[in-house]
Amino acid sequence: MRLSYETIHTELVRVLRKTGFAEDRAYNCATLFTETQQDGVYSHGLNRFGRFMKMIELGCIDIEAEPENIFGFGAVEQWDGRLGPGNLNAYAMMDRATELASQHGLGMVGLRNTNHWMRGGTYGWQAADKGYIGICWTNTNQNLPPWGATEARIGNNPLIISIPRKEGHVVLDMAMSQFSYGALASYRKKGVSLPVPGGYTNDGELTSDPAAIEASYRPLPIGFWKGSALSIVLDMAASVMSAGTATHRISSDPLKETELSQCFIAISVLTDFADANTLLDEIVAHLHASPSNEGEQVYYPGQRTLAKRKENIAQGIPVDEDVWIAIKGM
Amino acid sequence: MRLSYETIHTELVRVLRKTGFAEDRAYNCATLFTETQQDGVYSHGLNRFGRFMKMIELGCIDIEAEPENIFGFGAVEQWDGRLGPGNLNAYAMMDRATELASQHGLGMVGLRNTNHWMRGGTYGWQAADKGYIGICWTNTNQNLPPWGATEARIGNNPLIISIPRKEGHVVLDMAMSQFSYGALASYRKKGVSLPVPGGYTNDGELTSDPAAIEASYRPLPIGFWKGSALSIVLDMAASVMSAGTATHRISSDPLKETELSQCFIAISVLTDFADANTLLDEIVAHLHASPSNEGEQVYYPGQRTLAKRKENIAQGIPVDEDVWIAIKGM
Repeated sequence: MRLSYETIHTELVRVLRKTGFAEDRAYNCATLFTETQQDGVYSHGLNRFGRFMKMIELGCIDIEAEPENIFGFGAVEQWDGRLGPGNLNAYAMMDRATELASQHGLGMVGLRNTNHWMRGGTYGWQAADKGYIGICWTNTNQNLPPWGATEARIGNNPLIISIPRKEGHVVLDMAMSQFSYGALASYRKKGVSLPVPGGYTNDGELTSDPAAIEASYRPLPIGFWKGSALSIVLDMAASVMSAGTATHRISSDPLKETELSQCFIAISVLTDFADANTLLDEIVAHLHASPSNEGEQVYYPGQRTLAKRKENIAQGIPVDEDVWIAIKGM
Repeated sequence: MRLSYETIHTELVRVLRKTGFAEDRAYNCATLFTETQQDGVYSHGLNRFGRFMKMIELGCIDIEAEPENIFGFGAVEQWDGRLGPGNLNAYAMMDRATELASQHGLGMVGLRNTNHWMRGGTYGWQAADKGYIGICWTNTNQNLPPWGATEARIGNNPLIISIPRKEGHVVLDMAMSQFSYGALASYRKKGVSLPVPGGYTNDGELTSDPAAIEASYRPLPIGFWKGSALSIVLDMAASVMSAGTATHRISSDPLKETELSQCFIAISVLTDFADANTLLDEIVAHLHASPSNEGEQVYYPGQRTLAKRKENIAQGIPVDEDVWIAIKGM
């Protein structure tokens, strides 16, 4: 089924208000979920809303809590998320980073004690919409084995880098595993192999069989040892900058994955916007003109999200019927 | 053969002075090469010195040029490298980023018109030695096909992230390809397969055969589509922030790979250093305690570099005999 933005947003506001969210916070939180759904990232849109509500019920998310500024030095600040809703906290912190950037050229916020920010790309689009280069990342619980290990001890920490561009921002939104558990399940249900190896069997053999990876809990970090190392430094930087909790101390129970640490950086583009835009368009055109195998095509990061957004604005936003029935019943 | 730091450094200073380097610049440039060799990164230490000298001879590197501040706003600055030696330029710019960070909490420099910085990790260690978190990256010429393409149109742009730590800094130094061309050649010469797939055959099949990848010029970006996307945003950010040249306009002739664009970020750690150190040590201990397959072990990023450094300080620095003879003859 496809629904309008307005229909989805109104329904989410209703549920959030009923749960006790203040009017403006219900509105903003619903906006972040609805925009994520509209952008085609269903896993972190409505499909995630039920878990979000469950974590409020369990007391992991405090719907009234707002982030508090703990310490600052010039353009760097440390904030405590006080276990507020992860998406509202993250949005407020990227907003703060852009404020700092407007005063200092660039700004950075380390945020501790927050909750899952849902779609990380949201805060990249946010920075770019305001004209800033955005860089942000979060840690997670332990869900990926470090290179050389057989047990999950590092996080699938997403890294987002965005660059403002008139014809469509460039937005990288990249987790550290080659395939998420959600993606593995989706391939398995379709009965197809992964397009490239995505993890290990219980015997430590590289495999493209999604079920074997689900069984071993050993998905592959991107670039093997490289993605493993990147995950480690992102966790360290986020927990050190925020004086917060690192991955190894975050509960492995998905419903108790809380006290996360995150970083938000916003950077003023010193180059004249028109010149920067010309340069970016030239890079994009060069990529688009790449020779490729039949049926393949080169995209710039963010291109397909923007295309999906336009499609969903025109045709309505796809919603899983069961998910929608569940939300209507909340 | 193994040589002392002093022997190598003295010899490099002699060659650089003979080429016309001013005394202090010869000393500093020799230091950067010798330290890289001492850290075991031979490909960007002495093994690269000949090409560095050749590019001076060809006029790509101007040994007298120093970077010039073009524009600044608060903690962000744009500099022109004026085609000076890439390692001296990069060192000066990370130094400038840490100065900005000492005033503003964090600092960032976009550098254009520079040359190959040799080992990127150098500038990560540099920031960490001064007590700052360092992030830097460079673009390169076109040496990697973007995801979906059959022709090299993006760069193998290394990304460095470092975190200061008392018992050994954490330093990620990661290029975008799974294996460099240097690594491919080294596996081929040994007659062994790559440990994991590293690129494509001419027929577009994933392969672990190094020679097949050298023939196709299609090494694999880390994480397939993800590393490709990361390479693209790093090139865009570096060229936009510095108003410099992007990858697609940089010469594909290795001896004319010049006019590079780079970014340098230094961040003040707001958390008390002792507390931050305790947290980092805890993360490292947790990684080291990972269960693993026999003969495997988990390292934190930078751990093996530090171990190699200690070994080479104790036993002398390994130098390829032919390389040393060539340098002696310069």
